[in-house]
This record gives sequence, C-alpha cells and structure tokens, in this order.
Amino acid sequence: MLSKNKIKHYRTFHAKKTRETEAKFIVEGTKMVEELLATSLHIDTLVATEEWLENHKELPDCSEIFSATEAEIQAISTLQNPQQVWALVEKPSNEIQFSSRGLILALDGIQDPGNMGTILRIADWFGVSQVLCSPDCVEIYNPKVVQASMGAIFRVPVLHGNLQDFFAACTHTDIFAADLQGENVYTAILPADSILVMGNEGNGLSAEIKKCIQHRLHIPTFKQSGETSESLNVAVATAVLCSEFKRVNLVVNG
Amino acid sequence: MLSKNKIKHYRTFHAKKTRETEAKFIVEGTKMVEELLATSLHIDTLVATEEWLENHKELPDCSEIFSATEAEIQAISTLQNPQQVWALVEKPSNEIQFSSRGLILALDGIQDPGNMGTILRIADWFGVSQVLCSPDCVEIYNPKVVQASMGAIFRVPVLHGNLQDFFAACTHTDIFAADLQGENVYTAILPADSILVMGNEGNGLSAEIKKCIQHRLHIPTFKQSGETSESLNVAVATAVLCSEFKRVNLVVNG
Repeated sequence: MLSKNKIKHYRTFHAKKTRETEAKFIVEGTKMVEELLATSLHIDTLVATEEWLENHKELPDCSEIFSATEAEIQAISTLQNPQQVWALVEKPSNEIQFSSRGLILALDGIQDPGNMGTILRIADWFGVSQVLCSPDCVEIYNPKVVQASMGAIFRVPVLHGNLQDFFAACTHTDIFAADLQGENVYTAILPADSILVMGNEGNGLSAEIKKCIQHRLHIPTFKQSGETSESLNVAVATAVLCSEFKRVNLVVNG
Repeated sequence: MLSKNKIKHYRTFHAKKTRETEAKFIVEGTKMVEELLATSLHIDTLVATEEWLENHKELPDCSEIFSATEAEIQAISTLQNPQQVWALVEKPSNEIQFSSRGLILALDGIQDPGNMGTILRIADWFGVSQVLCSPDCVEIYNPKVVQASMGAIFRVPVLHGNLQDFFAACTHTDIFAADLQGENVYTAILPADSILVMGNEGNGLSAEIKKCIQHRLHIPTFKQSGETSESLNVAVATAVLCSEFKRVNLVVNG
C-alpha cells in the first residue's frame, strides 16, 4: 500500500521542476514499462498491481518496489485511464557525443508534447542518428512526450543546446529546412549526411536559425483548391521529409 | 448576452447524439471560423465577441448572431483556451457521389479524433479524391476532429458506409494496405487510381477488410536496433504512403 506521503511525493514528479532537480522522470503503463525494462536505465521506484508483479517476476534491480491497487496507481499517474504499473526512472547520465554523421533532426522550439513524442517515434523509425533540441523545445521527459514516443525516447539519442553551436561544429554538413517556397523535396538532392531543421508549430523557424539554413525543401501539395496557406502538421511534415531522405539514399543512391 | 437556456442548448451539441438528430456541428476559434466563412455551408448560430464582430462585418446569412463575452463563449465551447467565436453549422446536405478515380483513402475503424482530423488534413494536402469511413470510425463532426483537421473537413469529400460496398463498386481499382510484411513502398508500383486502406490504431484491419486487400505495402524502417514490433502512428503512416503515391505519379510517371 502507498502512504499518503508517498503519493504526494510521487505526484511532485508531474512537475518539470522536480524532474529537473531530482533527475528522474515518470514511465507508466504496461507497454511503456516493458520498453523500459529492455533498456539499461535505472528504475528508482516501481509501483504495480499484484497481478502485474505476478506476470513480471524477473525485474531488474530497482531501489523500491511497491504493490498497489489501480486506484493508488491512478493517484500518482499522469494518465486518465487506469494503469497496472508506474515507474520513476533515473534520467540517463551518460553524455551523448555530438556526431555529424547520418540524418540529424534539429528541432527549433517544438512546443506540443504530442508532436515531440511523435517526432521521436518518427526519428526512431527512420533511423535518425541524433535529435537536437533547442532550449525552448518542450522537455522530452514531460510525461506526454514519453507516452507519445511509444518507447522511442529510450532509443533515440537526443542532445540539448543552441542549434547554432551544433551547426558550427559540422561545417561540412548541409542544413535543410521545410519551407513552402522551397525546392520540391521529391526532386531535390538529399545527401545521406544532412541536418534537417523543423520549426515551431505556430511560428516556424526562429530568426537566428533561419540564417543558418542552406537549402529549403517543399513538400508538394496536390490540393484541388490550389490553396497553399495551410501547411501539414510539423510531425507529419517531419515524417514525409525523413522518408524522402532515407528513400533517396536507399533506392536512388543505392 | 447568452441566456442560461441558450448556453444549455448549445452545450447539447457537445454530444454526438444531438449533432446527429439536429444535423448540425460546432466550429470554433477564429482560424476555423474563417475557414468556415470561405465555404457555402449554412451557419445556424454565430456567437462572437464584440471585437470579433467589429472585425468581421461582412458575414454571410446566419439564422442567429449573438454578441457574447469570452466567458460566455467558454461556457459553450469544447476547447480549453478562451475563444473569440463559436458557430453552430448545418452539416452539408448534398450527397457526395462515390467515384473510383484518383487516390482514395479508406479508413477502417479509425478511433482517435486527433488521428482522424490529422488524416483529413493529410488527405487535403495530398489531394486525396475521396475519404471513405467505415461505420466504426470516430464521427468526423466530433469537435476534436473538426479542430485537428484545421479546416480540411470543409474541403475533403468524405463518404460513410461499409468499405466492402465501395470496393465492390470499383472492381478495376487496386486496393492497397499498410502491412509490416508488405512490399517496400519505395519500389512498389503505385497506380494513380488506387484505394489505400488504413486500419484501426490498436488492431489494424478488420478480418472482413483484410480479405479485400490486393497489395500490401511496407514503409521501410531504418532502426538501428532492427526491431520491427513498433510501428508508426496511423496518421504518420498515412502521410508517408500518400506522399509516395503522389510522388511516383508526379515524378516517375510524369
């Protein structure tokens, strides 16, 4: 059983501030915790129903394991539907080294947690080598991001910092961005080693990042009305562009 | 000012049942209502702030127009953020004729409103000629679908019915579906006139629809771990597949 104090303590991790000072984040639900168990991340606290614990006898070393009712798990959960399992996990401590190889995704102020999670899932699928997040991106350990990533958060290397600093470290890599006035992505030259920058949902790229872009890409529209004011959702556009980078280097360039 | 009775009445349109019996649906927020004003749909009721009405003097013929405070609009809104404008709109009455030309998207039990709205937006962008919805799809007039479609709901022709009946009416059109064991979409032959079937988020295609599929397509993964258990989100997969159908017929087949 979970004490009121424990419940209160675990709920503090719903807030970004606690996740940052304690360097821990929440992973919840059977699907996500099973993905977690496949990683080497250290689980600080695991709270699960008797039934879930029965079905998962070989657990890795956790600092604390509690059996709890669904109602108790609900009390510490960020999700609306009842869950069987909830975990508090230490953020990975190993520093990822920036590498300019492969397709790199640079996110300039992505704000919506659902979009961020979906983009991580896309990055995982298309084998993006690294994801760079600008300081004004939504925190990747936001529970909504973790959930929407469907486990991709455990697999995709994510780096944080000023995008310009990363760009300065790879002067030989072409920097691309989506732009309604850009070149047709279906016919553009797309090198295997590239940086693709995606901007904020409402405002697009920030002024300082715009200056760094070398190539602008456009996903052709086939609208019957011919209007071009509306754009694709940023995650959808990321998927189509990543698909093209990978297709060209798989099929066309061999 | 809105009377309590009016507020109560308008709130009944948050429920699918009222939208169905009254054949009306909610469109809200400046962006969506401006999209609405560009259509020929009949607006039953328009509720807006004084300021919004000042900026939109040339309104089409509406049965009723009310000036209201943001708080009153909030009371009838399905959105969390305060809005300037809210409309109750008659569903389009003209029956759309099924046509087997172009790229047709058939949705087999898409349940999530956000996915449905995003798919309509994708269909609009890629010029999908018609979207077919199986009876167990989420209602397209669900306010979350309307919102996520970003106006595409006003432009994309959507038909409802048993998908098998549509398929029976176009025996010369190839029927495709996404499948992890399918052919590589980057190298498959993708005719301009095709039906692309997308299945339910959790369960994929229903058994009866599976039998109708003639070609299975796979979006290659470039995952470093080589796992293939995880898939792309259905809206993201729809975007990548629609992009490929259109690219091939634009670039490769001219």
